[in-house]
Amino acid sequence: MSSNTLGKAFAVTCFGESHGRCVGVVIDGCPSGLKIKESDIQAEVSRRIPRNGNVVSARVEEDKVEVLSGIYSGYTTGAPLAALVWNKDIRSENYADLIDRPRPGHADYPAHIKYGNFIDLRGGGRWSGRMTLAMVIAGAVARKILAKSGIEVLAHTSQVGKVVAGKVGPDDIRKNTYTNPIRTADLTKVEAMTAEILQAKREGDSVGGIVEFTVLNPPVGLGEPIYDALDADLAKAFFTVPGAKGVELGSGFGAGASRGSENNDEFRLQEGRVVTETNRSGGILGGMTSGMPITGRVAFKPPSSIAKPQRTVDLTEIKEVEVTVKGRHDPCIVPKAVPVVEAVLCIVLVDHMIRSGMAPRVLRE
Amino acid sequence: MSSNTLGKAFAVTCFGESHGRCVGVVIDGCPSGLKIKESDIQAEVSRRIPRNGNVVSARVEEDKVEVLSGIYSGYTTGAPLAALVWNKDIRSENYADLIDRPRPGHADYPAHIKYGNFIDLRGGGRWSGRMTLAMVIAGAVARKILAKSGIEVLAHTSQVGKVVAGKVGPDDIRKNTYTNPIRTADLTKVEAMTAEILQAKREGDSVGGIVEFTVLNPPVGLGEPIYDALDADLAKAFFTVPGAKGVELGSGFGAGASRGSENNDEFRLQEGRVVTETNRSGGILGGMTSGMPITGRVAFKPPSSIAKPQRTVDLTEIKEVEVTVKGRHDPCIVPKAVPVVEAVLCIVLVDHMIRSGMAPRVLRE
Amino acid sequence: MSSNTLGKAFAVTCFGESHGRCVGVVIDGCPSGLKIKESDIQAEVSRRIPRNGNVVSARVEEDKVEVLSGIYSGYTTGAPLAALVWNKDIRSENYADLIDRPRPGHADYPAHIKYGNFIDLRGGGRWSGRMTLAMVIAGAVARKILAKSGIEVLAHTSQVGKVVAGKVGPDDIRKNTYTNPIRTADLTKVEAMTAEILQAKREGDSVGGIVEFTVLNPPVGLGEPIYDALDADLAKAFFTVPGAKGVELGSGFGAGASRGSENNDEFRLQEGRVVTETNRSGGILGGMTSGMPITGRVAFKPPSSIAKPQRTVDLTEIKEVEVTVKGRHDPCIVPKAVPVVEAVLCIVLVDHMIRSGMAPRVLRE
Amino acid sequence: MSSNTLGKAFAVTCFGESHGRCVGVVIDGCPSGLKIKESDIQAEVSRRIPRNGNVVSARVEEDKVEVLSGIYSGYTTGAPLAALVWNKDIRSENYADLIDRPRPGHADYPAHIKYGNFIDLRGGGRWSGRMTLAMVIAGAVARKILAKSGIEVLAHTSQVGKVVAGKVGPDDIRKNTYTNPIRTADLTKVEAMTAEILQAKREGDSVGGIVEFTVLNPPVGLGEPIYDALDADLAKAFFTVPGAKGVELGSGFGAGASRGSENNDEFRLQEGRVVTETNRSGGILGGMTSGMPITGRVAFKPPSSIAKPQRTVDLTEIKEVEVTVKGRHDPCIVPKAVPVVEAVLCIVLVDHMIRSGMAPRVLRE
Repeated sequence: MSSNTLGKAFAVTCFGESHGRCVGVVIDGCPSGLKIKESDIQAEVSRRIPRNGNVVSARVEEDKVEVLSGIYSGYTTGAPLAALVWNKDIRSENYADLIDRPRPGHADYPAHIKYGNFIDLRGGGRWSGRMTLAMVIAGAVARKILAKSGIEVLAHTSQVGKVVAGKVGPDDIRKNTYTNPIRTADLTKVEAMTAEILQAKREGDSVGGIVEFTVLNPPVGLGEPIYDALDADLAKAFFTVPGAKGVELGSGFGAGASRGSENNDEFRLQEGRVVTETNRSGGILGGMTSGMPITGRVAFKPPSSIAKPQRTVDLTEIKEVEVTVKGRHDPCIVPKAVPVVEAVLCIVLVDHMIRSGMAPRVLRE
Repeated sequence: MSSNTLGKAFAVTCFGESHGRCVGVVIDGCPSGLKIKESDIQAEVSRRIPRNGNVVSARVEEDKVEVLSGIYSGYTTGAPLAALVWNKDIRSENYADLIDRPRPGHADYPAHIKYGNFIDLRGGGRWSGRMTLAMVIAGAVARKILAKSGIEVLAHTSQVGKVVAGKVGPDDIRKNTYTNPIRTADLTKVEAMTAEILQAKREGDSVGGIVEFTVLNPPVGLGEPIYDALDADLAKAFFTVPGAKGVELGSGFGAGASRGSENNDEFRLQEGRVVTETNRSGGILGGMTSGMPITGRVAFKPPSSIAKPQRTVDLTEIKEVEVTVKGRHDPCIVPKAVPVVEAVLCIVLVDHMIRSGMAPRVLRE
Repeated sequence: MSSNTLGKAFAVTCFGESHGRCVGVVIDGCPSGLKIKESDIQAEVSRRIPRNGNVVSARVEEDKVEVLSGIYSGYTTGAPLAALVWNKDIRSENYADLIDRPRPGHADYPAHIKYGNFIDLRGGGRWSGRMTLAMVIAGAVARKILAKSGIEVLAHTSQVGKVVAGKVGPDDIRKNTYTNPIRTADLTKVEAMTAEILQAKREGDSVGGIVEFTVLNPPVGLGEPIYDALDADLAKAFFTVPGAKGVELGSGFGAGASRGSENNDEFRLQEGRVVTETNRSGGILGGMTSGMPITGRVAFKPPSSIAKPQRTVDLTEIKEVEVTVKGRHDPCIVPKAVPVVEAVLCIVLVDHMIRSGMAPRVLRE
Repeated sequence: MSSNTLGKAFAVTCFGESHGRCVGVVIDGCPSGLKIKESDIQAEVSRRIPRNGNVVSARVEEDKVEVLSGIYSGYTTGAPLAALVWNKDIRSENYADLIDRPRPGHADYPAHIKYGNFIDLRGGGRWSGRMTLAMVIAGAVARKILAKSGIEVLAHTSQVGKVVAGKVGPDDIRKNTYTNPIRTADLTKVEAMTAEILQAKREGDSVGGIVEFTVLNPPVGLGEPIYDALDADLAKAFFTVPGAKGVELGSGFGAGASRGSENNDEFRLQEGRVVTETNRSGGILGGMTSGMPITGRVAFKPPSSIAKPQRTVDLTEIKEVEVTVKGRHDPCIVPKAVPVVEAVLCIVLVDHMIRSGMAPRVLRE
C-alpha cells in the first residue's frame, strides 16, 4: 500500500535509492504563486552536509537539484512540483554481501524478509540517509511558504554523546547553527562535541546525539484533533528521519516527573496578545498550536555502520558469522540531521496550514 | 479536512464528545470471520479505569459498550464495525466559563480560536480523556486479531512523578499490571507511587509519569518505509493519547549519549531463528519490525486540571483573571493511560499487518 | 482496507446494515458554525421515499434520524458529526437462503466469495438501498453548506423504462419533482411513468430509468486536476448509488457522435460575467467547474429482485436450482434514487469547496 | 490538497506539463519481484499514438521512457517506481495568448481563475492529452502484474462520430485493435471511421467517439463496497482520461429502458464454475466482480481545438473577441484514448487486487 508520502494537503512523495539513478520527490498540493527559484532549493540542499570539520562523511561531488515540474517563470504553478538529484559518486561494490549477511542495526534483515531478494540495499537503498534529500528539497519549498506568514523554523545540535549544549535562545540558533560543522548553537561546546565524534571515529565506533528545535511565530490553532493532532504528525515526521529513537515536545519526558502546578503554562496578556508565562507545553495544547514557539527534541542513535567487526547471521547458509561494514561511515549523524529536522518541521507545518485554511491556494505578493 | 481517523487499512474513526450523547467509533477494514462478542469489548472497556485505590477520577456509572454494526452471529462481517458508549453521568455546569476563560494546559484557547464559539468544550469536549474510549474499543477488536497470530501487547506504569519502577519482564507485566490501581508491574513500587499521587491530590495538584510497553512475538517486516515506518506510525498514535509529551523506542533518548558499539544489536541464531543478542533497537530496524519485542516508553504530563487557582485571560473582556478549575480531576493520568497505550499499539499493529498482507481479509478458525 | 468513506475533506463514512441495528454515518471535516437542526436532516430523510402512489416499497415505520455528535446549541462544532437511523420494521426470515443460493443481479455471490459465510446479507445487508440513508443524512448537511454560497442542487426522474420526460428547466425541477411519487419534473409524464412501473409490478417484473441533475450557481474552478477532477469524483459518487450503470456529464454519450464545432461552448459576457452560450460541457472543463450549471444523467438498472422465478446455483450443493426472491420489492428504484443523486452531488461539491478553500473552516452568519 | 494520485494501494502520482521539462509518474505500492524491463514499458508508450493513417497528431520525436527508480536487476524492488519521458518537440509560441483568451471547450478559463496567472497552460499544461503518458507508463507495470494472474485487459474504438462498429468478441479485439490507426476491432469499419475523421479535419473541425473495453478472467470479489466499489473507482478513472464525457458498465444507459427479467443475469454452472448466462451487469454486482468479463464503454467528446474561429472573452480587457486555436490538433482523440482506457483499467484492477489481498507483496515466478 501507498506509504511513501508525508502529508495530506502538502503531500510529499519520495522516490529513488542511495545507489540507484537518483533521489527525487513530488510535492502535490503546493499553492500556486510562490516565488521560488531552483537556486533557493539548491541552497538548502547544499547546506545539508557540513563539508568542513571532518565529522561526517560526504560524497565528493555536490548534490545538484533539478526541478522537473511545477515551477514556471519563477513561480509555483499549483501543479505537482517534482525535483531530483542524480546520484553520481557511487561505490556499490562495498555492499555486495548485504542481502546475505545483515548488518547489525541496519534495515537489511527485515528488508530482506519483507521484499525478498529483490530489494536494492546498495548504499542502504531506501534506508540510506541520502533519502533525506527528498525531505530537504520539499522542506525548502515549505519554508518559503512559511516565511510568507512570518513563521521561522530553527534547529541545532544540543547533544553529542555525553556533551550537552547549554541553554540557547532563538537568536543563538539563528546565528550560530550553520557556522560550525557540529551545527550547535552553543559555540562553547563545538570543540568538545567535535572531539567526542573524532574520538569515536578513531576507535572505529560512532556516537549518538540530540537535535533541539523551535518554531517561532506559529499561528494559533494549527493541528487537527484527535488523530491528526500537530504533535502526533510532528512525532511521526521526526521518526521518519533515519536514526531517530525518541521525540519530546515541550517538557517531554521531564513532564513525567513533574507536578501540574509546575508544568502548566499560565496565560497572560502581552501587548494585547494572549501568551503564556512559560512554555512547557512546547507550544501545543490539545494537539493544536497555542501561538507560543513550538519546541522539542529528537534523539538520534549512533550510526549503525561501525568499523569494528560485529556478529551477524548468514541468511543463506544459516550460520553465525562476523561482518565488517565497509563503505563511507558517519561517526555521528546529528550534524546532518539538523537541517532534516528543520525540513520535516516545515513540511508538517505547511501541510497543516493548508488543511486549516491558513495558507491560501494562490499565494500573491 | 478529515482528521479523526487512525490507520489506513484498519481505519479507526472516532466521534462524540465528553458531555455530548456518546463516544463512538467506526472501524473500517476489519477482516471478516473474527470471532468476537460484545462482552469481549466490554471487558477491555471495563478495565479502562481502575475503580479501586482512589488514584483517578471515575464516572459513577460504568461505561456500557453497544455494538451497532459489523458483527453478526458472533463474527465480524467485514463491514464497518461501529460501537459506542452513551454518556450518562454528566455534570456540565462545571464548564460554563471555559470558552471565555481558557484553563492553563488545556485545549480551550486554541480550540476557541480554531472553531469559534461553536465548539463544545463541556467536560473537555473532544479533548477529554473520555475520547480514549474509542481507542479502547477499537483496540479490543485489534487485540483479538493479533492474538490469532500469537502477538501479545503489554504495558504498565513505569514511573509516577519521581518514583521509578524497577526492571520488569513480560511475565511481570502480564501478571501484575491489572492487579493494582497504579497499573505498575513492579509491585514493590505500588505503595510509593500511590503515595506520590495522593500527596499531589491532597495539595490540589497533579503528577506526571511514564508508561512502558512491549509487544511479544511480532512478525518480521511489519512497517512501510519511509513515511509509514512502524516507529513513525507508533509515535503518531502515542501522541494522540491525551497528555503524551514524549515517545521513545528501544534505547530512545539514551541512544543519544551512547556509542554504536554499545547500541547495535548483534544477530545470532536461536533454535534456527534469527534473533538479536540485545534489543536496543526496540524491535524496529529501518522502520520495520526485526522480530524482537517492540519496546518503548510514553511520557505523560501531569493533568492540567488542578484545584489550585491559576492565571488566565478572559477572552471576551481581554483582561487577566484567575481561574479555578472545577469538575472531576485526575491527580495522575498514567494508570488510565496504560490500557490506552496498549489499545493504540494494537490498532497500529493490525493496520500494518493488513497493509503487509500478514492478516488475511477473511479470518478463519 | 478502508473503503467506506466518500470524500477527503468532507469525509463521509457510513456503517450499518439493512437488517442490523441501524444505518449510520460519520461526517469528518464539517466546518463549525453551520446552523442546523436535527429536524433539517429529518426533513431530507423523510422525503427519501415517496409514500404515495404505490410505485416503490417502504418500511411501515418512518425513519427517524438521531444526531449523535457534532451539533451543539444548534450549530455544528467542527467535530465529527455522527447520526443514525435505527432499523425497526425488519422481516429477516425472507433472506435465510441467500448465502447458499445467490439471487441473480444481486451482490450475494461475490459477497459470499469475498467475505465468506460471515457476511450479513439479510435485507441486502451492506448492499441494500437502505444504505443510501447515510448518503441522504450527509447530503442534508452538505446542502446546508452549499446554500450559504447560493449553490442549489436539483434532480428529477427523466426516464422510466421507455417513457422519457420532455425538456425541463431548473424551475420545473425545483417546483415539480417532489410533488409526484415518480419525482419527475415533467408533470405530463407522471401518468405514463406510473403506468410503466405498475405494469412491470403486475407482471412480477421491474423497470429501469434515468435521473437527470443540475447544479445551479457553482463557483468557477471547483475540482482538482488530474485525478480528483470534479467530473471524476462525481462519476465515482454516482456509481456508489445502488443500481447505477451509467453516468453522463453534459452532452455525454451524445458527444461521441458530434463534431467539435457543435459540442464546444463559446464564451461570452453576460452582465460582466463570463458565461458560455451553450452548456454541452455540463459545466465542467478540464475537471473544473466553468461556473455554468453542472448537468448530467445517471442511469439505473431495473431492480434485480423480481417475483418471477429465476435460475441460480446452490453454492453448497453445487447444482443449478431455481430461486424466487421474497421480501419487499421495488418495481423501480428511480423515484427513490432522485434524492440520493442530489445527496451525493451535495457531498462531492462540499468536499471540493473545502479542498479549494472556497468553504471556510468556521462558517459565520 | 493532494489530488494527483490515482489508487490507494497501487498509488499512481503523476507530474509534469505538456511543455515543461517532462511528464513523469511515481508508483507507490508496486509489489517487489515483478520481472520487468524498461523496454516493456517503452513498448506500451510507443504504441500510445498511432503513427500511420494521419488520423491523429503526433510529436515528431518518439517518447522515450526512462525508469528512475524501483527496478533493480530486472525486477521491481517494492520501492516507489518512478519513470518519466522528457519533452522535446515543443512549439510553445502557439500558446502565448491562452491565459487571456480562453479557448472554448478547454480548461483555460477555470484554470486561470483557480491558479491565477501562475499556471502553465502551454500546450494544455496539466490538461494536455500528453499527461496520459503517466497513465500508460503505470498501466504497463500494472498490466504485467495482472498477467501473472491471467487477467487480460482489452479495448478498442467502437464508434467514431456517426460510424458504429459491429459486435466484436475478445478475439477480434486482441487481434485487430492495434493493426489499424483507428484502433477498432471491426475491420470492416476502418475505412468509414477514417473517412469520418479526415472529413472533420478537412473542415477544420473534430469528431467524438466511443471506446469499448473488456477485462477477461477477473477474479471474483474484486471491489470494496460501498464507496470504493469497483465500478465507482473505474468510473472515476475513466473520467480522468481527457475528453471523457460518459461511462457505462454492462448494459449501461440501456438498462434504464429495460425490465429486470431482461437485465438480470441468471447463474449457472460451467465445468464446475459459477457463471452467468448473460453479462448485462458488465461483470460487476454490488460493486464487486462476479468473475464474468468486466465490460463497458467510455464516450469521448470531439477535441475542443478546432481550426474554425470561435468566440471567447478577453479576460484582461473584459470584452468578447474571436479566437483561432493554433498548434497541433487531433481531429479525433479516440484512437489515442484506446490504450489509455486500457491503462487506467489496469491500474484500478491492480489497486483493488492488492487491497483485496489477491496480489501478494512479493511476486515470485
